[in-house]
Amino acid sequence: MKKNTKVNASILIIGNEILSGRTKDTNTSTIAQWLNSIGVKVNEVRVIPDIKDIIIDNVNHLRKVNNYVFTTGGIGPTHDDITAQSISKAFNLEYEVHQEAFKILEAYYKAGEFNEGRQKMVWMPKNAKLILNPTSGAPGFNVENVFCLPGVPSILKSMLGGLKNDIIGGDPILSHTISLKTVESEIANSLTNVQENNADVEIGSYPFFQAGKLGVSIVIRSEDQLKIDKCISEILEFINKKKIELVNR
Amino acid sequence: MKKNTKVNASILIIGNEILSGRTKDTNTSTIAQWLNSIGVKVNEVRVIPDIKDIIIDNVNHLRKVNNYVFTTGGIGPTHDDITAQSISKAFNLEYEVHQEAFKILEAYYKAGEFNEGRQKMVWMPKNAKLILNPTSGAPGFNVENVFCLPGVPSILKSMLGGLKNDIIGGDPILSHTISLKTVESEIANSLTNVQENNADVEIGSYPFFQAGKLGVSIVIRSEDQLKIDKCISEILEFINKKKIELVNR
Repeated sequence: MKKNTKVNASILIIGNEILSGRTKDTNTSTIAQWLNSIGVKVNEVRVIPDIKDIIIDNVNHLRKVNNYVFTTGGIGPTHDDITAQSISKAFNLEYEVHQEAFKILEAYYKAGEFNEGRQKMVWMPKNAKLILNPTSGAPGFNVENVFCLPGVPSILKSMLGGLKNDIIGGDPILSHTISLKTVESEIANSLTNVQENNADVEIGSYPFFQAGKLGVSIVIRSEDQLKIDKCISEILEFINKKKIELVNR
Repeated sequence: MKKNTKVNASILIIGNEILSGRTKDTNTSTIAQWLNSIGVKVNEVRVIPDIKDIIIDNVNHLRKVNNYVFTTGGIGPTHDDITAQSISKAFNLEYEVHQEAFKILEAYYKAGEFNEGRQKMVWMPKNAKLILNPTSGAPGFNVENVFCLPGVPSILKSMLGGLKNDIIGGDPILSHTISLKTVESEIANSLTNVQENNADVEIGSYPFFQAGKLGVSIVIRSEDQLKIDKCISEILEFINKKKIELVNR
């Protein structure tokens, strides 16, 4: 089967703790890197509060404009965990006990420990497909092109592998980084030329500070290694001409 | 002057490097914590790519539904730095050399070092107000309720203080955290009751893992200390009843 080259996704981070600045989001980076490796590009990330109508509106917008949507957060047992309810509403599905999830958690906990709080975690949109959780039992779930994952980074990370067969990516997005001992303004014009010669390749320029030294990383991204190689050689050409020191490539 | 109690903002992170997962965003946390301290609540964060039309659409949407918008990234000297152009377009303003910014950078750099690449950084929307940069010279800028900051976290951080007089916040958003040696499911029902008794206070529950131990942090947020205190005492009451160990409060 010929793959579709452009497959995109958005990430919807549901959580007041990110908006308040208390917690720094690392799930975007985890999900994006994993998606890139299977050929899915992240187009947009939104961070929104734990408010039902806002979750519904955002899910209903994003799922129409992207191949996939990944939500993080709000699937635990407490009052502020309202993702499953909200997704049910967004898709107009019953919010009900998921029998398979119930069995998984009943078996996961010791006798007597599968209490009312924990039972809340098996309420899901009707007929949702489970996303298994090898770390802490409670599964995520998937409805159509929307995949709902937990907010705790280590648990989320452990669940991504299980999604491999559910996400059909395009060609993997390849990336190459060239780091230079220079400042951006020194290479700006030459790099603009390379970008103009290679309009369908994504070329980014990022200053860095390492061990007190200034430098610039040039990141070249494309699904096509030959196109990346062409950019690399054009960049190395102007670097040599300008006698700029290469930190690594 | 009586302050307006509810003042909100959104943050627009402009940068392919966040969407690709290469860089973890920390600017949201920096900006949000600072805004909270001056009484501004962050309602939404969006991360978008370095694409002009997408920047314009997002800025024009967000600036209408929030008191303030903060953008990060895209104000350096390279081809992928297109924030100033895009903001000019969003506000229908000329994109031109900003004389004051030109003077600042001319004085900042040694003779001969204010090259063409660096001069790109003084192109801004006509009549933009500068946001001074005590770290690396090149200023950010402000048009109406939109404030454009750089993407490099240390530089961004150093520029926030200079905005103090431009942002009129409401009452500072206060926060109190109670950490417990328990799991969420143990307290879920009791905490739901506290939330229902105190509907206008934001109560969040966040599992944590510290030195191999499981715990839960309850975060209570409000502009009103008395309301926070009421929640604290209701929470301590059920904790005592349940004999749950307090890690700190």
